[in-house]
Amino acid sequence: MTSFTQSEIQSWERFYRGHFINSLSGYKSGSLIATASPEGHTNVAIFSNLVHIGADPALIGFVNRPRAAAPHTLTHIEATGVYTINHIREEMIAQAHQSSAKYPELVSEFEAVGLTALWRDGFRAPYVAESAVQYGMTLVEIIPIRHNGTFLVIGAVQDVWLAEGCVQADGFIDLEKAGSIATLGIDGYYRAQRIQRFGYAKPDQPPQPIY
Amino acid sequence: MTSFTQSEIQSWERFYRGHFINSLSGYKSGSLIATASPEGHTNVAIFSNLVHIGADPALIGFVNRPRAAAPHTLTHIEATGVYTINHIREEMIAQAHQSSAKYPELVSEFEAVGLTALWRDGFRAPYVAESAVQYGMTLVEIIPIRHNGTFLVIGAVQDVWLAEGCVQADGFIDLEKAGSIATLGIDGYYRAQRIQRFGYAKPDQPPQPIY
Repeated sequence: MTSFTQSEIQSWERFYRGHFINSLSGYKSGSLIATASPEGHTNVAIFSNLVHIGADPALIGFVNRPRAAAPHTLTHIEATGVYTINHIREEMIAQAHQSSAKYPELVSEFEAVGLTALWRDGFRAPYVAESAVQYGMTLVEIIPIRHNGTFLVIGAVQDVWLAEGCVQADGFIDLEKAGSIATLGIDGYYRAQRIQRFGYAKPDQPPQPIY
Repeated sequence: MTSFTQSEIQSWERFYRGHFINSLSGYKSGSLIATASPEGHTNVAIFSNLVHIGADPALIGFVNRPRAAAPHTLTHIEATGVYTINHIREEMIAQAHQSSAKYPELVSEFEAVGLTALWRDGFRAPYVAESAVQYGMTLVEIIPIRHNGTFLVIGAVQDVWLAEGCVQADGFIDLEKAGSIATLGIDGYYRAQRIQRFGYAKPDQPPQPIY
C-alpha cells in the first residue's frame, strides 16, 4: 500500500488536496437542492454531503459550505423555512454539475443550466421536474461547525414524489430503477448497480442475503 | 409520479418507514469504523453516513446513532481520541453487514465476523487489513443532535493508506480501482461505475467533461 501522512497532505497544492480528501470519504448522494427567496427568485445547486439523521421523525441533514462560498441556498432556507431535495439522474449530470458555477444572486440556475422548476401545492420552494425522486423539506435546525465555517442543515421530510414502481415491498426505494446516480469527490458521477441486500444482522446467525 | 405525505409516512410500520427514509437520501459511503478501548478491546462497525466537512484542514464527519443503540464506537473514541475509517470492498460486504449485529461489548467484531485488525505505528485504533482504503482519524468534536439523540462526530484525517495506483494525476482517488462499494438504505450494497468527471464549473462556459 501507499501511505500519506497528515503533514504531507497538508503541504499539497490546494486543488490536489481538495480532490484527494473529497474522494477519501467515499461515494455520496447526488442531489439538487432547490429554494426560492421570499420574492420568488429561484435557486438550485448540487449537494453531495447528505446524511440520514433519523426515520422517526424523518430527518435528513446536509453540509453547506461556508456562507461566503455558497450563500444563496442557506439564505433562502433561513427566509422561507423550506427547500426541496431532488435526485440527479444520469441524463442530468451535466446540468447538475453546471449548477455549481457561481452565478449572480438574481440569476436562476434553473434557467442558466436548463432545468425545470416545478411548483406544487403552495410549497414555497420549487421541485426539479426532471428528477425521478423529489422531496420537500422543512427546516429543523442549522448547526454551525465552528472549525471551518460550514453548517449542518437538518430538515424534516414533508411530501415525497417518486417515479412509479420504485418502492419495493419492504419500503426500500430502488434507485437503480429511478436512475439516481452516486457522486465521488468534487466532480465524479457514477451509476450504481446492486450487488446484494442482507437481512437484519444478529450475533447468532450468519448474514442473510435477501435478494 | 406517486406521492406520499408526511402524515402518511409517519403512519407506516417502523421497519417499512426505516427502509424508505434511509433510501430516500440516496447512495452513501460504505465504511467500517474501527476503535479500541483503553484496555485494547477492539471494535469494528459499519457506518454509511459520512460527510466531507473540509479539505484544509482535512475534516470528515459521521453520524452515530443514539448512544443506547450504538454505544461502543462512541465510547472508545471518547476514551482514546482516535479511530480508523476503512472502505468496504465487494469481497467484504457480508462481513461488513454482519458487523451491525449487536455483539456484547467484550466480543470483538473483528473475530466475530472474520476481519483482521491491523495495528500500525502505535496508533491506538486498529485498521481493517482487508480494506484497500484505510485512514486514521483524531477526534475534533462530537456534536449532539438534540432532535433524536444522534451525534455528528467530526475528526481530522491523519495517515492515509491506499492500495497502489489508485490516485489520479489531480489527486482524485479512483475508488472503482480500489474496489470500494456504495451503500443504499440500511442494507443495500452497490458497485459503482464512473459515468463522467467534469472540470470546475464557470457561469460563462458549458460543462467541461474531463474524462
